[in-house]
Amino acid sequence: MQKPIHPNRTPAYTDPPESFMARAIELAKHAATLGEVPVAALIVKDNQIIAEAHNRRELDKDPIAHAEVLAIKTAAEVLGDWRLEGCALFVTLEPCAMCSGAMWLARIEHCVFGASDHKSGFLGSVHDITTHSQMNHHYTVERGVMEAECVGLLQDFFRAIRAKKKALKKAGLE
Amino acid sequence: MQKPIHPNRTPAYTDPPESFMARAIELAKHAATLGEVPVAALIVKDNQIIAEAHNRRELDKDPIAHAEVLAIKTAAEVLGDWRLEGCALFVTLEPCAMCSGAMWLARIEHCVFGASDHKSGFLGSVHDITTHSQMNHHYTVERGVMEAECVGLLQDFFRAIRAKKKALKKAGLE
Repeated sequence: MQKPIHPNRTPAYTDPPESFMARAIELAKHAATLGEVPVAALIVKDNQIIAEAHNRRELDKDPIAHAEVLAIKTAAEVLGDWRLEGCALFVTLEPCAMCSGAMWLARIEHCVFGASDHKSGFLGSVHDITTHSQMNHHYTVERGVMEAECVGLLQDFFRAIRAKKKALKKAGLE
Repeated sequence: MQKPIHPNRTPAYTDPPESFMARAIELAKHAATLGEVPVAALIVKDNQIIAEAHNRRELDKDPIAHAEVLAIKTAAEVLGDWRLEGCALFVTLEPCAMCSGAMWLARIEHCVFGASDHKSGFLGSVHDITTHSQMNHHYTVERGVMEAECVGLLQDFFRAIRAKKKALKKAGLE
């Protein structure tokens, strides 16, 4: 169970984090079938999924269309408020600067991620956004939930892309 | 004139940065009349403004609706590509983690800002996102363009809010 940052508040979820991450992995797999880098996120409040999204950068030709940002936008619509109090965000890949910043702005209370991102992760890998005491909101982070599955789906996606490129090159088409 | 990060490329603008920042300040003043914290951004390519936006967080009840993110989304629509190559972003206030991250994702080449944000600025104040060599894109930053005007409009906005609160309290209405 999550350790809440505000111990007197109801936690966002009481079910095991794996039960939510499994759904995020399912969504990420769907994103891969659409040609998107397979990353998906969902937002949980009172142990219920209130928003979910996968990466849509290529589909929408939108640099902002990361899974976390799309899930946050939907959750704000569902709750009718930009303050996502009492909410946890689950995501298959460690959030980048934009997404970890969006979580801070949206007052997310807890973040659970699967795979670490050593090239652009801003929850511990490249930098840790939660370390700045002067910022006006703070959230807790749980790393590595279903990590092997989350890493695996990214590896499979990029391996398939490389194989396709190699085949095209061999056929003289690239 | 901006110092381009890629010296062989056409710079995003050749007019003085103040000419673009003056338009951003005008937009930010309009945001204040709508009850939004007065921050505005615009994107320039080939010396032309191709997108502009002001903060709409309260109007849209959307934690993501910062001026920079909205301007980036519009510019991507205008160009039909999520890669905003050859573009500079002007903004009245130092970008937060989300917005400085969004600029990185969108491949913005240069950022010009007015006022520094000592509580949440991620281009030098709280942290500097441009310092991470492992990230796959880098942009240059010019700080303090029309700083006094940009600071002034925020001070005026928050002073007016404090005065209103004080008056309501005095009248026993808050």
